Amino acid sequence: MLFSADHCIAILDAVRSRQPLVHNITNYVVMNNTANALLALGASPAMVHAIEEVEEFVALSQALVINIGTLSKPWIKAMDKAAGAANARGIPWVLDPVGAGATALRTDTSADLARLHPACIRGNASEIMVLAGATAEKTKGVDSSHGSADALAPARQLAKATGAIVAVTGATDYVTDGTRLIGLANGHPLMAKVTGLGCTATALVGAALAVEKDRLAAVAAGLSFLAIAGEIAAEKSPGPGSLQLHLLDALHLLDAPTIRRRLKVVA
Amino acid sequence: MLFSADHCIAILDAVRSRQPLVHNITNYVVMNNTANALLALGASPAMVHAIEEVEEFVALSQALVINIGTLSKPWIKAMDKAAGAANARGIPWVLDPVGAGATALRTDTSADLARLHPACIRGNASEIMVLAGATAEKTKGVDSSHGSADALAPARQLAKATGAIVAVTGATDYVTDGTRLIGLANGHPLMAKVTGLGCTATALVGAALAVEKDRLAAVAAGLSFLAIAGEIAAEKSPGPGSLQLHLLDALHLLDAPTIRRRLKVVA
Amino acid sequence: MLFSADHCIAILDAVRSRQPLVHNITNYVVMNNTANALLALGASPAMVHAIEEVEEFVALSQALVINIGTLSKPWIKAMDKAAGAANARGIPWVLDPVGAGATALRTDTSADLARLHPACIRGNASEIMVLAGATAEKTKGVDSSHGSADALAPARQLAKATGAIVAVTGATDYVTDGTRLIGLANGHPLMAKVTGLGCTATALVGAALAVEKDRLAAVAAGLSFLAIAGEIAAEKSPGPGSLQLHLLDALHLLDAPTIRRRLKVVA
Repeated sequence: MLFSADHCIAILDAVRSRQPLVHNITNYVVMNNTANALLALGASPAMVHAIEEVEEFVALSQALVINIGTLSKPWIKAMDKAAGAANARGIPWVLDPVGAGATALRTDTSADLARLHPACIRGNASEIMVLAGATAEKTKGVDSSHGSADALAPARQLAKATGAIVAVTGATDYVTDGTRLIGLANGHPLMAKVTGLGCTATALVGAALAVEKDRLAAVAAGLSFLAIAGEIAAEKSPGPGSLQLHLLDALHLLDAPTIRRRLKVVA
Repeated sequence: MLFSADHCIAILDAVRSRQPLVHNITNYVVMNNTANALLALGASPAMVHAIEEVEEFVALSQALVINIGTLSKPWIKAMDKAAGAANARGIPWVLDPVGAGATALRTDTSADLARLHPACIRGNASEIMVLAGATAEKTKGVDSSHGSADALAPARQLAKATGAIVAVTGATDYVTDGTRLIGLANGHPLMAKVTGLGCTATALVGAALAVEKDRLAAVAAGLSFLAIAGEIAAEKSPGPGSLQLHLLDALHLLDAPTIRRRLKVVA
Repeated sequence: MLFSADHCIAILDAVRSRQPLVHNITNYVVMNNTANALLALGASPAMVHAIEEVEEFVALSQALVINIGTLSKPWIKAMDKAAGAANARGIPWVLDPVGAGATALRTDTSADLARLHPACIRGNASEIMVLAGATAEKTKGVDSSHGSADALAPARQLAKATGAIVAVTGATDYVTDGTRLIGLANGHPLMAKVTGLGCTATALVGAALAVEKDRLAAVAAGLSFLAIAGEIAAEKSPGPGSLQLHLLDALHLLDAPTIRRRLKVVA
């Protein structure tokens, strides 16, 4: 079995006992939430982007997350440097190509970063399809205009081309190394009404990769932490404001019995 | 009647069915909340500011919001470009002149942007008075030192001078095209204890303008969505932390009966 | 007695009646929360960082907060200018040396700013030890690898060297002018699972310094506002998402009886 509740629980335990420092170069919209989600899970987050210090900071970290949500030229240079420093030291890094396909700057930057050997690329269907060269169609802003299953073949192709584990998130989340495939069916539609939960998934994948060498299982675990916590939160939330609060509480309270009871591996 | 519950409901329905992409160039403080409020209402938000991509992104959008809350020179250039691209394509854009009057940079930047044909300018009384040239008095930071009624004549004058619908928010919100006037009496004093709810009002006005050609009604609707949701939220909130959560829930749950029961048009 | 509930209550009352404008040059992660905490306490926050306007804005303010959490070169210049303007006008300013010791940029920038006569420096034990030159050990990201008591001697030394009141926060918070010492034992371990509560403490210290000339008492009051509100919030929170909400409510509801009942001065 590629991924089970046992894997997921072991990775959660490792995050909590090792409290990995996860270095984020991420967008302004989600910095607070991403940091809080990492803390609630048990990791130690930091947001550091200055070109003068990213390499030095990467060297202190156990994982790096690069998210292009609110992109600008100086940040791209810092992202490149940080990715290079991570590779040089064998520190896994995750790419979130927010809005790839919406503008040339986003498509080009994502493609350039994807060639710098990320351990994982996580996006919505539109982003992954654009990055795999499977479509030239304009992405609708930062939200996907495709279901995650539409991106299965492009995801496999992108994984083979880059060596990254590719994750496509949506109603069902898919994780592939180009050959093997894990499908995950946790989550809740109300999660799409909270900004940046995709970015949060990417950050939690970073925490999982920091403690687990089996990259396929680590990526699946990172996505599952968020999807299960989001599902629990949505069940008690009349709207997205409540969901955001309960999500952080649920990440903090996440435990083995909950994972065993909830985790839905569908492929 | 210039604005009624029927208008407000029709505009809400249009936002929900068309899910307009609202492009925001806004301040760091409120990005997360603004995005969440737009999502809760039913719109699709994006925060994009790089000069290399703002024009391309505006072209994908149905409305643009420019908010000068955490201003800097590179962002001013992007704001100018984005406003120009919006005008060239007939995409409505809204200006939020945060802190106009507090510093020369803010006053000058607001005045320059106000000349670039925004569909709407929304500010507190102090900001609108400064922008209308009605006062040379220093604004107290980003909070208003005047009540909204003090700014009625300046608001009319600013609307005539710029062609924008001008909205002055406060205990009562006023909306004018220079001739006609709508007064709105929803809201709650506790809302002033949550940062950036004025900025959120501006963003929701953007969503309304994206779907409604009657600009006066659209601006009134955008302000009403927030004021009604804020009022509902405040009634169940012991403090501003709770208000912020319940506000997003209330925007998500906002419906025709609630609008009919709550909306208070006073002029 | 250096600090008592009476001091704390008088300073709270002064913040609420005078609503000081607190100018923040702070990091992207906490801007929203910091602004909300200042509003909930009763102050008027503003986040302003452009080099073209920081001096003008400082002149409107009653206190300045400089936090290096998400540092970059252009912001360092603005921080220097703002600190200079504050000093020239006798406006108290607070330094938060986030991550000092993690990278050369952070250590050097903190050390440079510490020489510009801050009224207060607030950090965790690792940051204060690095800034006092007491250790050359690498800080673990932005979280402390030491308990606050470890930093007592370094804190005294840093206070003497800079003329600042130095606050070391942790399970027990310590405040010193180099000679006198106040220990404060409020707070709750769950607070460490919410990002940026240290930054929030610094901001509330800014609000207290804006209204109180006795700097030692003002710093102790700012820390106590947060620690007491956090303690109340944690008692009713299953996780960090709830804590963040209840914290803002508790700051808003903070009153004299609560302070009298809760405040624990231990040194």
